[in-house]
Amino acid sequence: MTETINIILAGPRGKMGTEALKLIERTDHFNLVGCIDRKHNGLSVKDIESLPNLDAPIYTESSEAFDELNADVLIDLTNPEVGYHNTHLALLHHVRPVVGTSGFSEEQLTTLKQLSDENQTGIVIAPNFAMGAVLMMRFSQMAAKYFPNVEIIEKHHDQKLDAPSGTAVKTAQMIQEVRQTEQQGHPEEKETIEGARGAEYDGFRIHSVRLPGYIAEQEVTFGQTGQTLKITHSSMDRYSFMSGVQFAVEQVIEMDDYVYGLENLME
Amino acid sequence: MTETINIILAGPRGKMGTEALKLIERTDHFNLVGCIDRKHNGLSVKDIESLPNLDAPIYTESSEAFDELNADVLIDLTNPEVGYHNTHLALLHHVRPVVGTSGFSEEQLTTLKQLSDENQTGIVIAPNFAMGAVLMMRFSQMAAKYFPNVEIIEKHHDQKLDAPSGTAVKTAQMIQEVRQTEQQGHPEEKETIEGARGAEYDGFRIHSVRLPGYIAEQEVTFGQTGQTLKITHSSMDRYSFMSGVQFAVEQVIEMDDYVYGLENLME
Amino acid sequence: MTETINIILAGPRGKMGTEALKLIERTDHFNLVGCIDRKHNGLSVKDIESLPNLDAPIYTESSEAFDELNADVLIDLTNPEVGYHNTHLALLHHVRPVVGTSGFSEEQLTTLKQLSDENQTGIVIAPNFAMGAVLMMRFSQMAAKYFPNVEIIEKHHDQKLDAPSGTAVKTAQMIQEVRQTEQQGHPEEKETIEGARGAEYDGFRIHSVRLPGYIAEQEVTFGQTGQTLKITHSSMDRYSFMSGVQFAVEQVIEMDDYVYGLENLME
Amino acid sequence: MTETINIILAGPRGKMGTEALKLIERTDHFNLVGCIDRKHNGLSVKDIESLPNLDAPIYTESSEAFDELNADVLIDLTNPEVGYHNTHLALLHHVRPVVGTSGFSEEQLTTLKQLSDENQTGIVIAPNFAMGAVLMMRFSQMAAKYFPNVEIIEKHHDQKLDAPSGTAVKTAQMIQEVRQTEQQGHPEEKETIEGARGAEYDGFRIHSVRLPGYIAEQEVTFGQTGQTLKITHSSMDRYSFMSGVQFAVEQVIEMDDYVYGLENLME
Repeated sequence: MTETINIILAGPRGKMGTEALKLIERTDHFNLVGCIDRKHNGLSVKDIESLPNLDAPIYTESSEAFDELNADVLIDLTNPEVGYHNTHLALLHHVRPVVGTSGFSEEQLTTLKQLSDENQTGIVIAPNFAMGAVLMMRFSQMAAKYFPNVEIIEKHHDQKLDAPSGTAVKTAQMIQEVRQTEQQGHPEEKETIEGARGAEYDGFRIHSVRLPGYIAEQEVTFGQTGQTLKITHSSMDRYSFMSGVQFAVEQVIEMDDYVYGLENLME
Repeated sequence: MTETINIILAGPRGKMGTEALKLIERTDHFNLVGCIDRKHNGLSVKDIESLPNLDAPIYTESSEAFDELNADVLIDLTNPEVGYHNTHLALLHHVRPVVGTSGFSEEQLTTLKQLSDENQTGIVIAPNFAMGAVLMMRFSQMAAKYFPNVEIIEKHHDQKLDAPSGTAVKTAQMIQEVRQTEQQGHPEEKETIEGARGAEYDGFRIHSVRLPGYIAEQEVTFGQTGQTLKITHSSMDRYSFMSGVQFAVEQVIEMDDYVYGLENLME
Repeated sequence: MTETINIILAGPRGKMGTEALKLIERTDHFNLVGCIDRKHNGLSVKDIESLPNLDAPIYTESSEAFDELNADVLIDLTNPEVGYHNTHLALLHHVRPVVGTSGFSEEQLTTLKQLSDENQTGIVIAPNFAMGAVLMMRFSQMAAKYFPNVEIIEKHHDQKLDAPSGTAVKTAQMIQEVRQTEQQGHPEEKETIEGARGAEYDGFRIHSVRLPGYIAEQEVTFGQTGQTLKITHSSMDRYSFMSGVQFAVEQVIEMDDYVYGLENLME
Repeated sequence: MTETINIILAGPRGKMGTEALKLIERTDHFNLVGCIDRKHNGLSVKDIESLPNLDAPIYTESSEAFDELNADVLIDLTNPEVGYHNTHLALLHHVRPVVGTSGFSEEQLTTLKQLSDENQTGIVIAPNFAMGAVLMMRFSQMAAKYFPNVEIIEKHHDQKLDAPSGTAVKTAQMIQEVRQTEQQGHPEEKETIEGARGAEYDGFRIHSVRLPGYIAEQEVTFGQTGQTLKITHSSMDRYSFMSGVQFAVEQVIEMDDYVYGLENLME
């Protein structure tokens, strides 16, 4: 039997927070003991029209929540400022935090790590909860050691402003760390229409497709004479982040230390 | 029962020509009656080491071949200059030509068409024998009427010099003919690395991937909110052209007129 | 300038109907003059909480709607029974119907066709409004004439009960109509695990993938020595049907006759 | 500067052996010092018409080759029987073997391992030199820990007899080792045409496509609500194995121990 995990959720009315409430609701061994919200002090989750029918008290003061509730885990889906405050308090109360942000400063991270060590309380900070994306980047880095010829194609809806996407650039950086630098393509290659060969990153190429009908997809292709190896991740909605949240909660409960990045929870 | 088609092949020692000999050899209702070559007059195909074991006389003078042989079809896989000479002679002798070239001038094409009409002798001139590529371009043009948002990604080996490929540009032209012109992507879209969005062609984009392991592949993707439609053609070797040659021969034998482009033989 | 099209919508509160209201709202030359609904007689669309903020009267009696409103087109997204009643009345009132159903009987279709002819009033009946799916099936049928070797892979979410999908079977039927029947694969091919080669349909194969993360995708692949041609359609939500509805409305306004199936509106 | 590696090749006239000769010829730091062949004793490689123009003596007696030549590495591409004999001798002479076979018995493997340990001579035995395939299987196993919903689609030419392919079954086994067993798909799912859902393996599915135009391709797809992760490997010819041979040679030269399987050379 899996033991029940008692959870405080901070940020229940945000887009991610609302999904997290649904996650808790449908996961048998997850139990919501309370929420931290900047409004609705003293009400119950079920009193808020847009939220699921869960009976758990809402606190506007984090410290009260940690004092009064018997929680194992804090899921924080607020913003860097509020999130840092909540996370800090949680560690002091031996409640293990799972925090979804890339916004903490180096100094804040160092403080949280020290606090985690001192209190022997596990903590997971995850800039990206999409487990599929995390694996795609990891596999790409592993493959690049043996297949230095690589190109990235990312495809998004046509309302996206930046090209290439943040995930594509992150993937490129991770590939660069291990890839033997070389200029790909024929040395005398030429573009008869400018831009055909895409964006150059350390000698390899990134292509950005923008079409209605796509949400977010990326394929990383490695080539060698006679073979290609392709890793493709496609995500459709923020719901795809919730398996990452669930995974992090199930891991943190067993941990006494600090982990940054979901990839470091995966063997 | 399918009736036997008697064939003269011009250019038997070229790469395409040698494949065509193999095609004739393994096709029951194809019969090689002779070859036109610039060498080896008077020898038989089977006397030439690199060629299949077919017993058919070789002529260096085209006119002699047409005078002496009883042929239904000429397959010409030489070059524009020789090919024009052979094709012209074939029509005069009521032998139906299947010619694989994009090198004839407008004037030459007009002459051949007139000659075909006068002699009521069918002729097929095909710049591209890859039936899959021809269908890919045709389907792309049909889809573009209803799905104006489109991007082309072509993938080739890394020894290719030009980007985009000739097939990609041809496809783009065919799309442009029917597509309602519009500038795709967000108006304020910006490239954080130059070239990420690919080559622009009449408001839509073409991306060229160059990696060892690929031979020749193209995907044309159409997007609309909530759906994508993608047409992908992948070809591996010149053998893929032979089904187009076979198709053209089987069509021309029933024809009394002039057709340019394999797509015009397909309903 | 595009002329405004005045529209009556039947079934505004259904899933498709609500999407259709949004379509009308954001399309400049579409104008909602009224709705037919089985409830809310006399109210306006904007009075119903779940519906867009459009001011148009609701009728529970179709005949009143047609008598009182000056409409060009009826969009009917109800059910076969109600839909037939509405469509019949529309034709009598010279209002052109666009009907999304596959549920009419042969007899009903014949009656509607006659009525359309007599009144010289265009009508479009569409069992499938997904234009991408319609094109995928059409291209598959075209390709099968020249590429008799084909397999279908369809991929859906894992809550789907039937395999293969209805679209896959429809596609297979359309391919069968034109394909030269042959048993594909090696004659001595054997399955070491039963079912590996998929479902057989007239000598070719259909494979059904069921995984969370997919919504609805189908790829139809044609193979020939040295090349493959693949047509892939992916749809994400019922929103993808709305471009088909819009297309049908824009076509029917120019028509005086009866058309069954969106594919017959596409050249 | 990379130091030159002196190589003995066993089996130079086989398909793989001939490719290996070409590999040695074009790799700057590889030097062929001799070959072991069952014919042509005393001749040089360049004397054999079908082989590259390399000047290196041929031996029919392996022991003579190891006695007379100063070699760092043996590449053995013969068969299990001859290969075992050669490999055993190589280890005795402190020449590091790279052997491409899956045909050694457990007993033979144990003996070779002991000999390698005693002589502190590295050895690599590789049933599969296709690095891309090895990575595909490894990534699939890694992903299956976090994504238990998976299906495998493998695509081969239509002359292949067995379905599923050996690689697909091997991949399925590796997934099974780590995957939490569960029956995928809806419990009440039903096949309206038998076989649609493919071959079942421990609750997940494998699909085998057989079409001309494919050589060897496999895609392993993992699904979770809202996202999919797909790993695709495509290989075209035996040339694709040579990068694996090169990699193994470059690794073995640094090794004093026994490694079975290319995957165990990759971090």
